[in-house]
Amino acid sequence: MPRKNDFHMSPEEFRRHGRAVVDWLADYYAKIESFPVLARVAPGEIRASLAPAAPVEGEAFEDILEDMNKRILPGITHWQSPNFFAYFPANASGPSILGELLCAGLGVQGMLWSTSPACTELEALVLDWLVDLLGLPEKFRSDGAGGGVIQDSASSASLCAILAARERATDFASNERGCDRSLVVYASTETHSSIEKGVKIAGLGRRNLRLIPVDDRFALRPDLLGRQIRKDRRNGLVPCLVCATVGTTSCNAMDPLPAIGRICRDEGVWLHVDGAMSGTAALCPEYRYILDGLELADSFCFNPHKWMFTNFDCDCFYVADRAALIRTLSVLPEYLRNQATESGAVTDYRDWHIPLGRRFRSLKLWFVIRYYGAEGLRHHIRHHVSLAQDFAKWVAQSDRFELAAAAPLNLVCFRHTAGDAFNRRLLERLNASGHLYLTHTTLNGQYVLRFCVGQTHTGTRHVRQAWHHIQKTAGNLEKGK
Amino acid sequence: MPRKNDFHMSPEEFRRHGRAVVDWLADYYAKIESFPVLARVAPGEIRASLAPAAPVEGEAFEDILEDMNKRILPGITHWQSPNFFAYFPANASGPSILGELLCAGLGVQGMLWSTSPACTELEALVLDWLVDLLGLPEKFRSDGAGGGVIQDSASSASLCAILAARERATDFASNERGCDRSLVVYASTETHSSIEKGVKIAGLGRRNLRLIPVDDRFALRPDLLGRQIRKDRRNGLVPCLVCATVGTTSCNAMDPLPAIGRICRDEGVWLHVDGAMSGTAALCPEYRYILDGLELADSFCFNPHKWMFTNFDCDCFYVADRAALIRTLSVLPEYLRNQATESGAVTDYRDWHIPLGRRFRSLKLWFVIRYYGAEGLRHHIRHHVSLAQDFAKWVAQSDRFELAAAAPLNLVCFRHTAGDAFNRRLLERLNASGHLYLTHTTLNGQYVLRFCVGQTHTGTRHVRQAWHHIQKTAGNLEKGK
Repeated sequence: MPRKNDFHMSPEEFRRHGRAVVDWLADYYAKIESFPVLARVAPGEIRASLAPAAPVEGEAFEDILEDMNKRILPGITHWQSPNFFAYFPANASGPSILGELLCAGLGVQGMLWSTSPACTELEALVLDWLVDLLGLPEKFRSDGAGGGVIQDSASSASLCAILAARERATDFASNERGCDRSLVVYASTETHSSIEKGVKIAGLGRRNLRLIPVDDRFALRPDLLGRQIRKDRRNGLVPCLVCATVGTTSCNAMDPLPAIGRICRDEGVWLHVDGAMSGTAALCPEYRYILDGLELADSFCFNPHKWMFTNFDCDCFYVADRAALIRTLSVLPEYLRNQATESGAVTDYRDWHIPLGRRFRSLKLWFVIRYYGAEGLRHHIRHHVSLAQDFAKWVAQSDRFELAAAAPLNLVCFRHTAGDAFNRRLLERLNASGHLYLTHTTLNGQYVLRFCVGQTHTGTRHVRQAWHHIQKTAGNLEKGK
Repeated sequence: MPRKNDFHMSPEEFRRHGRAVVDWLADYYAKIESFPVLARVAPGEIRASLAPAAPVEGEAFEDILEDMNKRILPGITHWQSPNFFAYFPANASGPSILGELLCAGLGVQGMLWSTSPACTELEALVLDWLVDLLGLPEKFRSDGAGGGVIQDSASSASLCAILAARERATDFASNERGCDRSLVVYASTETHSSIEKGVKIAGLGRRNLRLIPVDDRFALRPDLLGRQIRKDRRNGLVPCLVCATVGTTSCNAMDPLPAIGRICRDEGVWLHVDGAMSGTAALCPEYRYILDGLELADSFCFNPHKWMFTNFDCDCFYVADRAALIRTLSVLPEYLRNQATESGAVTDYRDWHIPLGRRFRSLKLWFVIRYYGAEGLRHHIRHHVSLAQDFAKWVAQSDRFELAAAAPLNLVCFRHTAGDAFNRRLLERLNASGHLYLTHTTLNGQYVLRFCVGQTHTGTRHVRQAWHHIQKTAGNLEKGK
C-alpha cells in the first residue's frame, strides 16, 4: 500500500483507522469470555512471533492492527474479562477508555497550571468531588490547607507520603543534609510491599521499618504499635510515619484507624492511610465505616483504577497539609518560571509527585463519574460486595472448603480442607482451564486462594460459574482425576 | 435520555460513542491552528464553568463530550499545535494515539510477565529495536546483561539510576541500613532539575550534589569534574553517580561523554546519560555523534514522548547491568509469587521502576515505529533540524536579534539586542497573540528566548510565520507600539 510523502496520519486517515480500532475493541469486549483468562504461552513465545527488527519503511495501519489479533492477543491475560478474580482488579469501562483516548489526543502537559489550565483545574475539582462522594474529611479538599492529586499508583503515593513525613520529622532538613538514619516507619506484617519499597527508596533503610504484628483478623495491633513507638523513642530513634491499610492486599483486613490515629496524633507521627482497593467502597454510605478515624490521617490514597471503572493509571492521593508535600518535592528552574506561578494564585501539580510531566488523567475520572453518576457507581459496588458475600456463604456452607479470613467486602480468602499441596494443585488446574483466573496468598502460614469480585462486568452468572468450576475441579482432584 | 439499568456502556454503545470521540479528535486536529496556542483564561475560570458537585444520576455521553468543546477547550494550551515552540515538545501522532487507545481498552497489568506475557515481551523487543535504530551500545540489549524498560518520565529514570548507583556504591547496603550521607552525585549547572529532585528523594541530600561549571558552550567541564571527584575522595566522601546530558533543557548543550565516561570508568562511578530530548536525533546516522562515548555509560534514557511522535508517557531507560537495578528495587510478597517468576526464565518489569502496576505502553511505541518506519521517523527529525537551522540562520543574519547559544539540533536560543526587559515584553506579547507559543530561559545571566522545532506537525510554513511574527512584534515594540 503506497504511503504519502509526509508519513503522518492525516485527520481523515485518523478518522478511518480510529473507527477500526474502536470496532476492534467493541468486538474484543463482545467476545472477551471466549478467551482463556490467563494467557497460555511459554516464555519467549510471543516475542518469537514478532519481527526481530524494526521496519525501514512504514507499514499499513491495517497490517499493524491485524497483528493485534494474530500475535498480541495470545499473550494477553484478560484483566477485563468478567471471569477475572485474581489479585485486585484493574478495571476499565467505556467512558474511561474514551476519556483516556481524549487525553492521548489532546496530548497536553499538566506540569504547571499555565501549561494547560483545564488539566489542573479539572483535576482539583474532580478530587474535591471525590471528597464528597466518599465522605472524606473536609481537610483533604483543595479549598483548605490540603488537596488531592492523581498519582500513577499507590506505590508512588506511599513514597510521596514517606518523603513528606521524612521532611516534616526533620524540620525539612533531610532534603538538604541527606536522610537521617534515625527515622522509623511503621506498618503491619500485612501491609503492601510498596511501603518497604518506599522506605528503601527514601533512604530510610529497611531496618528502620517496623512490621507490627496483626490480630486474628489480620489487622494491625495498636497496642503493639504504641509500645514499639515508645521503645524506639527511648532508643533515640525518631518515629516518622505509620501506614495503616483499609483493605490489605492478602485478605482485605481493615486496620483500626481510630486507635492508630490517636497514637499518631499523640506522638506527632505522620499517618498515611492506604485504601488502594477498598477506599472505593466508601462511595456507599453503608460501607463508609471503614474510613472511620480518617480525620486523624495526614494522607490517604485510593485507586479508582482498581475498583472504580477508571483504567490504570489513576491513584487519588490526598494530603491534609499540601505545603509540606510541595516543600518536599519542589524545584523551580528558570525554564519553568511563569507569571501564573509567581502570582501564587494557581496550583502547579509538578510539585506533588515524582515525575515532572503529567498527562490529563482527570478527564477519564470525570467521564466515569458523570457517565455512571454517584448512584450508578454505588449500584456496582453493592452488587460486587453482594456477589462476594454469596460466594463466602457458599464456601462457609461447603464441607470441603473453609473461609481463611473474614470477608468484609468483595475479597474472599478460602481454602480446601485437604491442605496446601492440594490447594496449590487446585489453583493451577483452575487457572489452566481458562474459565477463570484467581491467585493465592498465605495466611497464618497456610496456602490460601483469593477470590476478588471487582471486575467491571462481573455479574451473578460469572460468580456462580466460578463456584461451580471450583467445586467440580476440586471433586476431580479428590478422586485422583 | 433514559439509561438502562446496569449503567455500563455496552459494546454497541462503545462503538457509537467511540466513533464520536474519534471524529471529535479528527476535527480537533483539522482545526487546531485556529486556537490560540497558549490558553487565555484566568486562574479559576475553567473550574467556575464546571458543575461544583458530582451528578447523582448518570449523564448522557453526548452531553459529556459536548462539554469538551464548551468548557475544556478554552483551558487547553495546545501542545499538539504546529505553532507550539515552547519548552520541549510532548508530541503525539495518529498511530500513537490509537496504540494508547488499545492499551486503555485491553487494560492489562504488566507488573509480572505472567500477568500478560505480551506486555513484557513486546516491551523488551521494542526497546531492543531502539538499540539498533539509535545505534546504542550492544550492552543495553536485553539478550546480554542489560536491558531497557519504559518509565513514565526521565525524572523517574534518573531517580532509578541514582538509586541503583547508591546501592552499587554501598555494596547494596543502603537499602538495608539507610542512605549513606557520604555519597556524592555530580551534574552540571545546566543539568535538568530532576537530578536535584532525585538526589533529595533518594536521601542523599542536596548538599551532596555537585553542580560542575560549564564551558562557553554550556557543556560540563570534565577537568573540573575530575578535580571535584578527587577532592571529595580526599575528604572521605564516596563519588556515586555522574549525570551527563545530551541536549540540556535550557539550550541543548552536549556534555562531552567520552571525557566524562573515562573519568567515571577510572573512578568507578556510575555514569547516567540523560538524552531525554535529543536522544531521538540518533535515529539519523549523521546525528549519532552526540552519543559518542555512550559505551562508557551505566544507564541512558531518552523520551519518545518528546520528539518521537509517541504520546506521553514514554521514557526509554536502559541499564548495562540489569541485575543492579533489579536488586535495588525488588520486593517479592507472597501474593506476587508465580511459577514463571520462579523459573527465572522471564523478566518481571515491576522490579525496574517505582510503581508496581504498569500499563501496556510499548503498544504505542510499536505502532509508531511500524507506521512511520525508520525512514519515516528520520525524515521528520531531519526536517525539524533543518527548520531550526534555517531559523538560527535568520536570527544570525538579523541586525536586531542574536543567537544566545550554539544550536546543534532543533532548539534555537536567541534574544533581541535591546536587553532583558525588552525580551520579556516581547515574549509576553508573542504568547498573548495566540499565533505561537515559546518560552524562555537564562544563559550567562541574560534573559533568552527558546524556539524549539519538534512538534509532530510543524512544517516550513509554521517556522516562517513564527519568524515573521517575532520580527513584526519586535518592530512594534521598538516603535513603542
